[in-house]
Amino acid sequence: MSIPPSISTILKAGPIHFGPFLVTTQVFHLTPHSYALVNLKPILPGHVLISPRRVVPRVTDLTPTETSDLFLTVRRVARMIERVYGASSLNIAIQDGAEAGQSVPHVHAHVIPRRRGDLDHRGGMDAVYEMLDGEEGDLGRVFEKGDGEGEGEGVGVGGRRRFPKVDDEERKPRGMKEMEGEAWMLAREMEKEPVD
Amino acid sequence: MSIPPSISTILKAGPIHFGPFLVTTQVFHLTPHSYALVNLKPILPGHVLISPRRVVPRVTDLTPTETSDLFLTVRRVARMIERVYGASSLNIAIQDGAEAGQSVPHVHAHVIPRRRGDLDHRGGMDAVYEMLDGEEGDLGRVFEKGDGEGEGEGVGVGGRRRFPKVDDEERKPRGMKEMEGEAWMLAREMEKEPVD
Repeated sequence: MSIPPSISTILKAGPIHFGPFLVTTQVFHLTPHSYALVNLKPILPGHVLISPRRVVPRVTDLTPTETSDLFLTVRRVARMIERVYGASSLNIAIQDGAEAGQSVPHVHAHVIPRRRGDLDHRGGMDAVYEMLDGEEGDLGRVFEKGDGEGEGEGVGVGGRRRFPKVDDEERKPRGMKEMEGEAWMLAREMEKEPVD
Repeated sequence: MSIPPSISTILKAGPIHFGPFLVTTQVFHLTPHSYALVNLKPILPGHVLISPRRVVPRVTDLTPTETSDLFLTVRRVARMIERVYGASSLNIAIQDGAEAGQSVPHVHAHVIPRRRGDLDHRGGMDAVYEMLDGEEGDLGRVFEKGDGEGEGEGVGVGGRRRFPKVDDEERKPRGMKEMEGEAWMLAREMEKEPVD
């Protein structure tokens, strides 16, 4: 399977950082000011993140140009994710600052595809938000270990740990191979999306 | 107290709709494609909504111009809200479609100012999300009644009702006078915000 053209472009443009972490091979879409990356511990299949290329912690730190580029990227990636994962709705969420639940100090919009009843077995529609906080903590901690190969169990950054049942039993951090495979697949799907 | 200039502009530009509901007098900021309005049942003081002026249900329905305008407005309103309400973080969330918890079929971004420990008495940092879903349901139902004068208790749109403890005991829909007073105050504060 040959490398998607957009992945070649991304690898040449790198290194790409998510906060202090190097994430170049998890990135599946790159624009002048933003990038989209697959997630270490997706809440649901297709849960991805969109960030500005410049490492800044808060939305207000973005320039107007970066702000427009970020959310045009959110809109376009979200449309692709909804199509590819057969979803009918999306949660779009930004934890803008530590007191809002942000653990990696780099602006990132979560895009999570939703389908009717998709979280019924985990407590219903709202469970997505509870899981979001668990994921954030673990995301930071596991990236810090630097390998992403399955050691993500335990407490989150700063000892934060919530809803351990949901987090411990069902969600495992994924290996790099799985994430890179998904990044290639999503890069190909983004290449099919109309520009508008 | 004289009417803020931006409120005069909004009243002249109206009527402004939030889904099927007329909300002109709750709007405190208007741009070419977006508006910001105060909330019937704020989760925390300063919880506001930003919507496109065109009534469309999904983010993908927005044009690129509308998308940029909406999120530049979110960023600018968010900065003002953080300042005015003495917050240190913000939750920004869009329930994009019914399966993501959207009850009023008109794109709207929630902006919720956060401070350390602000929801400790309601179950911690995550409670904001649980409350978000309760608010959405009630928002739709109470708007449907058309007066916003305190009849917001009970089940949400389509019978949705979650986390009744949080919702019933502590959050009451506000009267029009209180909301309009807040809209005038926030309109004045927006007039002070730098354009960038």
